Amino acid sequence: MLGTVLYGPRDVRCEEIPEPKILKSTDAIIRLSASCICGSDLWPFRGLNDVTQLMAMGHEYCGVVEAVGGAVATVRPGQFVVGSFCISDNACPHCRRGFQSSCHQREFMTGAQAPRARVPLADGTLVATPDMPPDDLIPSLLATSDVLGTGWYAADAARVEPGATVAVVGDGAVGLMGVLAAKQMGAGRIIAMSRHKTRQDLALEFGATDIVSERGDTGVDRVKALTDGIGADSVLECVGTNDSMTQAIRCARPGAMIGYVGVPHGVELDGQWLFYSQTGMLGGPAPVRRFLPKLIDLVLTRKINPGRVFDLTLPLADVAEGYRAMDERRAIKTMLRV
Amino acid sequence: MLGTVLYGPRDVRCEEIPEPKILKSTDAIIRLSASCICGSDLWPFRGLNDVTQLMAMGHEYCGVVEAVGGAVATVRPGQFVVGSFCISDNACPHCRRGFQSSCHQREFMTGAQAPRARVPLADGTLVATPDMPPDDLIPSLLATSDVLGTGWYAADAARVEPGATVAVVGDGAVGLMGVLAAKQMGAGRIIAMSRHKTRQDLALEFGATDIVSERGDTGVDRVKALTDGIGADSVLECVGTNDSMTQAIRCARPGAMIGYVGVPHGVELDGQWLFYSQTGMLGGPAPVRRFLPKLIDLVLTRKINPGRVFDLTLPLADVAEGYRAMDERRAIKTMLRV
Repeated sequence: MLGTVLYGPRDVRCEEIPEPKILKSTDAIIRLSASCICGSDLWPFRGLNDVTQLMAMGHEYCGVVEAVGGAVATVRPGQFVVGSFCISDNACPHCRRGFQSSCHQREFMTGAQAPRARVPLADGTLVATPDMPPDDLIPSLLATSDVLGTGWYAADAARVEPGATVAVVGDGAVGLMGVLAAKQMGAGRIIAMSRHKTRQDLALEFGATDIVSERGDTGVDRVKALTDGIGADSVLECVGTNDSMTQAIRCARPGAMIGYVGVPHGVELDGQWLFYSQTGMLGGPAPVRRFLPKLIDLVLTRKINPGRVFDLTLPLADVAEGYRAMDERRAIKTMLRV
Repeated sequence: MLGTVLYGPRDVRCEEIPEPKILKSTDAIIRLSASCICGSDLWPFRGLNDVTQLMAMGHEYCGVVEAVGGAVATVRPGQFVVGSFCISDNACPHCRRGFQSSCHQREFMTGAQAPRARVPLADGTLVATPDMPPDDLIPSLLATSDVLGTGWYAADAARVEPGATVAVVGDGAVGLMGVLAAKQMGAGRIIAMSRHKTRQDLALEFGATDIVSERGDTGVDRVKALTDGIGADSVLECVGTNDSMTQAIRCARPGAMIGYVGVPHGVELDGQWLFYSQTGMLGGPAPVRRFLPKLIDLVLTRKINPGRVFDLTLPLADVAEGYRAMDERRAIKTMLRV
């Protein structure tokens, strides 16, 4: 079958790869209904993470179970499933406390930019829908696998409360999902920091009440001005650079929490500065599995439409163009027909 | 009158200073019932903070109001009061959200290692007791002003919950108060990290269930062993060095909160390491004013006895010996008879 392989910086290829097989009794093989490209795929694509060996790309997925190992008990062939990009047993102490992304058996999903994929620890990772969902919901169900789950975790970690003022740093797909999540959690005001018209429009559609197009000092001043000099009650950091993290901390009121989900690259925090800013922080890879049942239900009942974040759809054969379009910010997020 | 002045590293003197006066209409003058030396006083004493001018030392205080400015409405001469080491108006947006230590008008108390002191923003800073408290409760009431309030904030910021496993890094007075706070909040297990017999004993008296005397890797391994490899649900960091902060983070389970109240000195946090540790953090100068009414009540009803943390009492004239005893760890915390 065809699949997506990263050879090195800016060298991603769709090429013939082996069909996935059941390797352990806890595995499942799924036939993907769709796949997509993640903002985090751009780190190695841009050469910002070392690529020391060929990488089978893709970690967001939903589709129909084709086969399961002998130990799999909760999903069966023919069921439609969504899984987290973090593989987890959903049974260890970290999982039971809702941090499946730090599962004792954690793995990160790979190889999902392809028609079929192997999902390890199927029982702990996959969630089946009650019925076969309608086709038009596939993009939104796919979004729950990572991008929505990650934005949701940012809002959860930032402890967004009803009526709260929330600032979202980053207008990538995750930031936009953070806006949607904050809205669902009842935020009274959602300030989206974005310089791009199409992303601003989508942020407004997802529930943003204010757009701040400035960055750095000016952006912070604007957020402060919008909040009577107080700062935001919750801040979602959805980029991962030192500049964006600094901006997030400076937009927060004392006692606010920052939920940070952009994988930090070059972020160094001075302890004393953080101490006197009195900003709370919680981040990490999102424990999407915790949120999946709720998010899937919100999609199936059509209360949210996160699939709107896909503004480019390509056949798998054109995956390289999908990466380029996101890298050049011509696309917010690329869905792949597999 | 006599008062305490820091001239430079290891040069603290009790000498004649001017009587405090009402300078603003929001001030109060109090006659202190007792004063004490704070662990944070040791930073400049040890030369770890620059001392560029003479410093009037002392920020923990309780006593009887002698005079108030014309705008003071909530306390009156003759009342017994306790105040926070952080001066606040208790009315600005940060105060209203419980972060009085980031008050728009914040000042830090000074000059309280003396018989009398000026307290700015008296209405927002001081809390009066219903009656004149008995003498034997003075040490515990004094403790609420900073050391207990700070340990309490560490436990609050670390979100200690009933039944939780809590680790406390640091066996100074604040760490010991953190143990007391965690116990009051219903922690099921409290692991105190301490190498000193007298402090271990006090930790056990305050509610610690386990003592870990090792530090660094070995200390972390011991905490992990005590928690079935999981780590603590809440960690109180009560030191402020890079080593102690690292130890705190490594003792925490993913998703745990660290309440850090040791003023960071030389603490640098790598964003990516913090991200993958998935540890939450909230620190800063403690908003003691938020907790004062409750803490005073716990003392007056004799439910807690934080005054036990004072293991050395000296007359004000011997304040320099009080500093030395704490610096050399011969005393946990020195109370001063003023």
